[in-house]
Amino acid sequence: MERKKEILERIFADEQKTLRPISEGAEKWLNRPIKCLDYGFVYLVDYMGNDEAVAQAASVSYGRETKNNPDLEGLIRYLRRHTHTTPSEMVEFKFHCKMPIFVARQWIRHRTANVNEYSGRYSEMLNEFYLPEPSALRKQSKTNKQGRDEELTPEQCATILDLLKEDYQRTFEHYQKFLTLDLAKELSRINLSVANYTQWYWKIDLHNLLHFLRLRLDTHAQYEICIFGEAMSRIVKDAVPICYRAFEDYQLHSMQFSRVEIEIISQNTWPMQEQVMTQILEQISNKRERAEFLEKLKKLNFL
Amino acid sequence: MERKKEILERIFADEQKTLRPISEGAEKWLNRPIKCLDYGFVYLVDYMGNDEAVAQAASVSYGRETKNNPDLEGLIRYLRRHTHTTPSEMVEFKFHCKMPIFVARQWIRHRTANVNEYSGRYSEMLNEFYLPEPSALRKQSKTNKQGRDEELTPEQCATILDLLKEDYQRTFEHYQKFLTLDLAKELSRINLSVANYTQWYWKIDLHNLLHFLRLRLDTHAQYEICIFGEAMSRIVKDAVPICYRAFEDYQLHSMQFSRVEIEIISQNTWPMQEQVMTQILEQISNKRERAEFLEKLKKLNFL
Amino acid sequence: MERKKEILERIFADEQKTLRPISEGAEKWLNRPIKCLDYGFVYLVDYMGNDEAVAQAASVSYGRETKNNPDLEGLIRYLRRHTHTTPSEMVEFKFHCKMPIFVARQWIRHRTANVNEYSGRYSEMLNEFYLPEPSALRKQSKTNKQGRDEELTPEQCATILDLLKEDYQRTFEHYQKFLTLDLAKELSRINLSVANYTQWYWKIDLHNLLHFLRLRLDTHAQYEICIFGEAMSRIVKDAVPICYRAFEDYQLHSMQFSRVEIEIISQNTWPMQEQVMTQILEQISNKRERAEFLEKLKKLNFL
Amino acid sequence: MERKKEILERIFADEQKTLRPISEGAEKWLNRPIKCLDYGFVYLVDYMGNDEAVAQAASVSYGRETKNNPDLEGLIRYLRRHTHTTPSEMVEFKFHCKMPIFVARQWIRHRTANVNEYSGRYSEMLNEFYLPEPSALRKQSKTNKQGRDEELTPEQCATILDLLKEDYQRTFEHYQKFLTLDLAKELSRINLSVANYTQWYWKIDLHNLLHFLRLRLDTHAQYEICIFGEAMSRIVKDAVPICYRAFEDYQLHSMQFSRVEIEIISQNTWPMQEQVMTQILEQISNKRERAEFLEKLKKLNFL
Repeated sequence: MERKKEILERIFADEQKTLRPISEGAEKWLNRPIKCLDYGFVYLVDYMGNDEAVAQAASVSYGRETKNNPDLEGLIRYLRRHTHTTPSEMVEFKFHCKMPIFVARQWIRHRTANVNEYSGRYSEMLNEFYLPEPSALRKQSKTNKQGRDEELTPEQCATILDLLKEDYQRTFEHYQKFLTLDLAKELSRINLSVANYTQWYWKIDLHNLLHFLRLRLDTHAQYEICIFGEAMSRIVKDAVPICYRAFEDYQLHSMQFSRVEIEIISQNTWPMQEQVMTQILEQISNKRERAEFLEKLKKLNFL
Repeated sequence: MERKKEILERIFADEQKTLRPISEGAEKWLNRPIKCLDYGFVYLVDYMGNDEAVAQAASVSYGRETKNNPDLEGLIRYLRRHTHTTPSEMVEFKFHCKMPIFVARQWIRHRTANVNEYSGRYSEMLNEFYLPEPSALRKQSKTNKQGRDEELTPEQCATILDLLKEDYQRTFEHYQKFLTLDLAKELSRINLSVANYTQWYWKIDLHNLLHFLRLRLDTHAQYEICIFGEAMSRIVKDAVPICYRAFEDYQLHSMQFSRVEIEIISQNTWPMQEQVMTQILEQISNKRERAEFLEKLKKLNFL
Repeated sequence: MERKKEILERIFADEQKTLRPISEGAEKWLNRPIKCLDYGFVYLVDYMGNDEAVAQAASVSYGRETKNNPDLEGLIRYLRRHTHTTPSEMVEFKFHCKMPIFVARQWIRHRTANVNEYSGRYSEMLNEFYLPEPSALRKQSKTNKQGRDEELTPEQCATILDLLKEDYQRTFEHYQKFLTLDLAKELSRINLSVANYTQWYWKIDLHNLLHFLRLRLDTHAQYEICIFGEAMSRIVKDAVPICYRAFEDYQLHSMQFSRVEIEIISQNTWPMQEQVMTQILEQISNKRERAEFLEKLKKLNFL
Repeated sequence: MERKKEILERIFADEQKTLRPISEGAEKWLNRPIKCLDYGFVYLVDYMGNDEAVAQAASVSYGRETKNNPDLEGLIRYLRRHTHTTPSEMVEFKFHCKMPIFVARQWIRHRTANVNEYSGRYSEMLNEFYLPEPSALRKQSKTNKQGRDEELTPEQCATILDLLKEDYQRTFEHYQKFLTLDLAKELSRINLSVANYTQWYWKIDLHNLLHFLRLRLDTHAQYEICIFGEAMSRIVKDAVPICYRAFEDYQLHSMQFSRVEIEIISQNTWPMQEQVMTQILEQISNKRERAEFLEKLKKLNFL
């Protein structure tokens, strides 16, 4: 209730005047949380720069820092195509994010960000634990040792969710009991699970944010962090539309071929019959690498 | 058992020849774990450089990179006294560390290190949870909102430890049940607590390691991470004895005075009577700042 | 001419509306160059955050992120006094700076910034070289091997400035001749001196900027980079007045005592006679360290 | 003379015993300078780790850190193919490098390294300036605004080299004159050109070194820094042969296709007639991007 009022106040705060560059797309997202998982969220707290700021920083290298670049899009796309990444370090985003601890643990591995996190030493942890949707409860993947795959049966889901709820409840009661006994907060919290929610301010430049998104929007990322990646990608897409589109075109949806793959491709006629390919593939000794190449060839309609 | 054999093998591995600089003190610590808390440890996996390497890097700036610096100690101490920290970035340490997740979460905030951590998405978590010694179970500190203070009664300790053990055991059983149901490992682990042990390889240069130690050997650090800081400080002290001594003298055991404190000190005669001081202290409006200053004055026998 | 028009346009650009936090002090400096040395300047291109943003980021750790912190100043000063530096990473500044290459070479050693520099491979270098004021032309310092000291005679100054001007002019003529011969720009420029001006966009967070200022406002910094530090400090002082004041009080004008200095101070009565001190000082074996301590004692009116 | 003796001493230093992992390939390069340009060099001062160390760090994530990984090569290649770069941060190299200042200025832009550089404030600069080989003196490239292209005539080369030599000599004489007048070293050096040699210790981890090499071995890098990249790549190739080979296969000699390129490739039969292609290419509106795609298609023998 309190919380809702606070959010509404933030959203309907008075606009102020500034001489700084504006991103219309980013302004729309300021202070508007996107719900993530059951108790989590992401919202934009502040930002600096826009598409023009990237072009402007690049332009300093050739001595013409004009605000109205005649070919803004061409320049930005050129920079990204050639991975000239320093100009996109000139745009900055600050988010407030709330997520389960196990998600935070993956997230924090991105070291080129500024972070201020909720402290369980200083403050009481909340009774908020991530309880997956039944559809998210999936079997261990057989091909990907760190991934998930098919759905479980409704009965299996129910069993798991019941046990999780029970554990969350009981450990939180014990946590409260420890606090009642006046055990230091920094110790009381140690039996709370990594599904417990934490939150932080997270500030990062556009270059490093896109790197984060590339990894966390990938199919190999854990579903739960992917949700946060998607939320932020919606904001970034509006804030710097030209940069984001170039990122999609040249990185997110790009395909890379290794030296040996290039050799094989350049020596043949495409498409070809799949049987013929099988023989050719012998040139790649590693089984998994072969499978990865086959998949790429199929995406290209080469088989 | 397996584990013990492996450690012994590592410790009694054959020495090899190298042309690289050696630190006798570091060699002694290679592969020898120091126990930390109940299941944790720290050991030195590899290192690069020694006291001479710091002096040698500094010497390049004045064009004389001699291996046998006539005043090695004088130079190193001068560098640290004047916080010329770049030469101490030239020494590197690689540790293998095992610690509870809540300790790892504080540790990882030091961003200028290289890390490879055990993955609960890929591998099964072990049935190892941090159970504090009764003497470590302490009351919430009244002066330090994020610290602990007096001991609890034996009965209170017993209650807490019983509940912790019970929670650890039950949640681990549930974890195993989830795995039996073939729930993906990345999901099964989410009800394990932050007291569960993880481990990592952690590589850091001397400058950043000393910064870590300064923060984590501090009385405000959580006891459980302090234990790991102490273990590493034993190793560093032997590996680069001159650097470590300078660190102790000029940083760890140093004292800093603010502008207003300098003014007050310079306008009076010391020691003085405590009552007189009380009046003078009015110049510092902030209550906590006043208390901090008083404490410093007492350490200097000024009151 | 062109240039002046461009600057005026920037300064009198229309204000736009934003929901972002504003710093009144920073707004005043946007796009207003501060002249540095003969051809150089610094101006604020963009910024993110203000004093409140530092407090707000700190507050997330105790779960109360209120915009109107009752004791904003107390909190910010507490953070800095205890070197809790992460909240001040939440404020960001972007400058456009123009400086001699030898200044840029010292500046770039601060690695935690984002940079886009003018490229001599891509663009023609300008006929702008740093010619020191006669008062800046000083003798090699005898105490500080990397510093300057007393003034030279007017005749000596004239000789030096004449030779510099002559060299600047001739090498620039040769540079232009190389370009006329169609020699690649990346090669033509190699005989231009490190006094030639370059420029860049430089973006950095408040924490790292204050670290930069601490080093570059120091008496040991080269005068020419100090000028740029002072220009930026004027801007920062207005942009985040509470943070800057805390920085001055607890860092810039602070004094640090080593372990042995603390011992000596705590065992004596102050002020004392300088002769007595001489004996006591024997406890510090290093001559330079002794001199440094003496200087501190004098600043405290202890001698 | 002095210098040669010192180098020989370093090379024939006595081997010492160590329990650390060894790289036979790296040992061979310790202290053996590779000449770069006229006065420059690169040599390996120290190193940490080897191919096994990369695999070992990766293995901690799945809880099996065995020294003798059965499929060392398969694992390392898998990591690089999937850009799992953190394990290659576990290997470290320390080089001593001497290069012209304009090369150092490009080099230092790689921020994730540790650096100690020769100081012109502290020490006298040497009379060593980069004088290009006539074959390196080339015309401004017409297609690449920051590159060079065809050779100049012998007469043009002679003219340029004469002017360079003259400038180098005269400015150095003036530098010495300034020093004679007792002008501070930090000022005396400002008329020396960016072709003057500097030197530094440079320490970097394998991941970041390979990133450096990828950029600096590229055809778009300036020839003079490329020479240093090649020198280091020889050392790295011997030090971590499996990692380096994977880097060549999956990064250095890889090819990337954008979203629209993938679409075009997947909708056609290859090879095709170049005229047909011209029409299809209309789908890519940007002229330069079209040219880049055409070039890739030719490399694949698709046209």
